[in-house]
Amino acid sequence: MATFMDVHTGMKGITSEQLAEAHRADLAIEGEEGVHFEKAWADPESGTVYCLSEAPSAEAVQRIHERTGHPADEIHPVPLTVS
Amino acid sequence: MATFMDVHTGMKGITSEQLAEAHRADLAIEGEEGVHFEKAWADPESGTVYCLSEAPSAEAVQRIHERTGHPADEIHPVPLTVS
Repeated sequence: MATFMDVHTGMKGITSEQLAEAHRADLAIEGEEGVHFEKAWADPESGTVYCLSEAPSAEAVQRIHERTGHPADEIHPVPLTVS
Repeated sequence: MATFMDVHTGMKGITSEQLAEAHRADLAIEGEEGVHFEKAWADPESGTVYCLSEAPSAEAVQRIHERTGHPADEIHPVPLTVS
Protein backbone atom coordinates (compact mmCIF):
# COMPACT_ATOMS: atom_id res chain seq x y z
CA MET A 1 0.00 0.00 0.00
CA ALA A 2 1.12 3.52 -0.72
CA THR A 3 -0.19 7.04 -0.35
CA PHE A 4 -1.46 8.93 -3.40
CA MET A 5 -2.57 12.48 -4.09
CA ASP A 6 -4.80 12.81 -7.11
CA VAL A 7 -5.96 15.97 -8.78
CA HIS A 8 -9.16 16.72 -10.68
CA THR A 9 -9.56 19.88 -12.72
CA GLY A 10 -12.58 21.32 -14.49
CA MET A 11 -14.83 21.09 -11.42
CA LYS A 12 -15.68 24.79 -11.34
CA GLY A 13 -18.61 25.61 -9.11
CA ILE A 14 -18.50 22.28 -7.25
CA THR A 15 -20.62 22.46 -4.12
CA SER A 16 -20.08 20.94 -0.72
CA GLU A 17 -22.89 18.49 -1.46
CA GLN A 18 -21.44 17.46 -4.80
CA LEU A 19 -18.03 16.89 -3.21
CA ALA A 20 -19.62 14.79 -0.44
CA GLU A 21 -21.64 12.80 -2.97
CA ALA A 22 -18.58 12.10 -5.15
CA HIS A 23 -16.64 11.01 -2.06
CA ARG A 24 -19.50 8.76 -0.91
CA ALA A 25 -19.60 7.12 -4.35
CA ASP A 26 -15.87 6.43 -4.18
CA LEU A 27 -16.10 5.04 -0.63
CA ALA A 28 -18.94 2.73 -1.64
CA ILE A 29 -16.77 0.76 -4.08
CA GLU A 30 -13.17 1.54 -3.07
CA GLY A 31 -12.79 -1.77 -1.24
CA GLU A 32 -13.11 -3.67 -4.50
CA GLU A 33 -9.69 -2.30 -5.51
CA GLY A 34 -8.17 -2.20 -2.02
CA VAL A 35 -8.24 1.60 -2.08
CA HIS A 36 -9.20 3.96 0.74
CA PHE A 37 -9.94 7.60 0.04
CA GLU A 38 -9.01 9.46 3.21
CA LYS A 39 -9.79 13.04 2.45
CA ALA A 40 -10.59 15.49 -0.34
CA TRP A 41 -10.26 19.26 -0.68
CA ALA A 42 -11.95 21.41 -3.31
CA ASP A 43 -11.48 24.87 -4.75
CA PRO A 44 -14.78 25.67 -6.49
CA GLU A 45 -13.36 28.84 -8.02
CA SER A 46 -10.61 27.20 -10.06
CA GLY A 47 -12.43 23.87 -10.21
CA THR A 48 -9.59 21.91 -8.63
CA VAL A 49 -10.13 18.91 -6.34
CA TYR A 50 -7.36 17.07 -4.45
CA CYS A 51 -7.94 13.56 -3.09
CA LEU A 52 -5.65 11.77 -0.65
CA SER A 53 -5.78 7.99 -0.66
CA GLU A 54 -4.09 4.80 0.45
CA ALA A 55 -3.98 2.32 -2.39
CA PRO A 56 -2.04 -0.53 -3.95
CA SER A 57 -1.37 1.52 -7.13
CA ALA A 58 -2.27 4.69 -9.03
CA GLU A 59 -4.17 2.49 -11.48
CA ALA A 60 -6.39 1.18 -8.68
CA VAL A 61 -7.17 4.76 -7.61
CA GLN A 62 -8.05 5.67 -11.18
CA ARG A 63 -10.27 2.62 -11.70
CA ILE A 64 -12.43 3.69 -8.74
CA HIS A 65 -12.58 7.32 -9.85
CA GLU A 66 -13.47 6.25 -13.41
CA ARG A 67 -16.26 3.95 -12.27
CA THR A 68 -17.78 6.76 -10.21
CA GLY A 69 -17.62 9.14 -13.15
CA HIS A 70 -14.80 11.47 -12.17
CA PRO A 71 -11.44 10.27 -13.51
CA ALA A 72 -8.42 12.10 -12.09
CA ASP A 73 -6.25 14.30 -14.29
CA GLU A 74 -3.12 13.49 -12.30
CA ILE A 75 -2.29 10.83 -9.72
CA HIS A 76 0.97 11.11 -7.80
CA PRO A 77 2.41 8.65 -5.32
CA VAL A 78 3.47 10.73 -2.29
CA PRO A 79 5.81 8.48 -0.31
CA LEU A 80 7.17 11.43 1.69
CA THR A 81 5.03 13.19 4.29
CA VAL A 82 5.75 15.72 6.98
CA SER A 83 3.55 17.37 9.58
CA MET B 1 -8.54 32.15 8.23
CA ALA B 2 -8.97 29.75 5.36
CA THR B 3 -7.49 26.49 4.19
CA PHE B 4 -5.06 26.44 1.26
CA MET B 5 -3.40 23.72 -0.80
CA ASP B 6 -0.25 24.86 -2.52
CA VAL B 7 1.75 23.00 -5.10
CA HIS B 8 5.47 23.07 -5.85
CA THR B 9 6.89 21.50 -8.98
CA GLY B 10 10.47 20.95 -10.07
CA MET B 11 11.47 19.23 -6.81
CA LYS B 12 12.64 16.00 -8.47
CA GLY B 13 14.68 13.81 -6.19
CA ILE B 14 13.59 15.58 -3.01
CA THR B 15 14.50 13.49 0.02
CA SER B 16 12.64 12.97 3.26
CA GLU B 17 15.25 15.12 5.02
CA GLN B 18 14.96 17.94 2.51
CA LEU B 19 11.17 17.92 2.86
CA ALA B 20 11.46 18.00 6.65
CA GLU B 21 14.03 20.81 6.52
CA ALA B 22 11.86 22.92 4.16
CA HIS B 23 8.86 22.36 6.44
CA ARG B 24 10.87 23.32 9.53
CA ALA B 25 12.00 26.53 7.83
CA ASP B 26 8.37 27.42 7.04
CA LEU B 27 7.23 26.61 10.58
CA ALA B 28 9.97 28.78 12.05
CA ILE B 29 8.57 31.99 10.51
CA GLU B 30 4.96 31.15 9.60
CA GLY B 31 3.62 32.96 12.66
CA GLU B 32 4.83 36.28 11.30
CA GLU B 33 2.15 36.05 8.62
CA GLY B 34 -0.47 34.25 10.70
CA VAL B 35 0.02 31.10 8.62
CA HIS B 36 0.19 27.51 9.82
CA PHE B 37 1.50 24.77 7.56
CA GLU B 38 -0.25 21.60 8.66
CA LYS B 39 1.11 18.94 6.40
CA ALA B 40 3.09 18.33 3.23
CA TRP B 41 3.28 15.42 0.81
CA ALA B 42 6.00 14.87 -1.77
CA ASP B 43 6.44 12.82 -4.93
CA PRO B 44 10.21 12.76 -5.54
CA GLU B 45 9.76 11.09 -8.92
CA SER B 46 7.72 13.86 -10.56
CA GLY B 47 9.12 16.52 -8.22
CA THR B 48 5.71 17.60 -6.93
CA VAL B 49 5.10 18.78 -3.38
CA TYR B 50 1.68 19.58 -1.89
CA CYS B 51 1.36 21.72 1.26
CA LEU B 52 -1.81 22.12 3.29
CA SER B 53 -2.08 25.28 5.38
CA GLU B 54 -4.40 27.50 7.38
CA ALA B 55 -3.77 31.13 6.52
CA PRO B 56 -5.35 34.55 6.18
CA SER B 57 -4.64 34.64 2.42
CA ALA B 58 -2.81 32.94 -0.44
CA GLU B 59 -0.42 35.89 -0.47
CA ALA B 60 0.53 35.24 3.16
CA VAL B 61 1.26 31.59 2.30
CA GLN B 62 3.42 32.66 -0.62
CA ARG B 63 5.36 35.24 1.40
CA ILE B 64 6.45 32.53 3.85
CA HIS B 65 7.37 30.10 1.06
CA GLU B 66 9.32 32.83 -0.76
CA ARG B 67 11.27 33.81 2.32
CA THR B 68 12.28 30.19 2.91
CA GLY B 69 13.40 29.83 -0.70
CA HIS B 70 10.67 27.66 -2.19
CA PRO B 71 7.87 29.73 -3.73
CA ALA B 72 4.77 27.76 -4.68
CA ASP B 73 3.76 27.36 -8.31
CA GLU B 74 0.07 27.29 -7.43
CA ILE B 75 -1.89 28.18 -4.31
CA HIS B 76 -5.57 27.25 -4.11
CA PRO B 77 -8.02 28.11 -1.38
CA VAL B 78 -9.83 24.85 -0.57
CA PRO B 79 -12.95 25.91 1.35
CA LEU B 80 -14.59 22.51 0.82
CA THR B 81 -13.30 19.42 2.60
CA VAL B 82 -14.64 15.92 3.03
CA SER B 83 -13.33 12.90 4.90
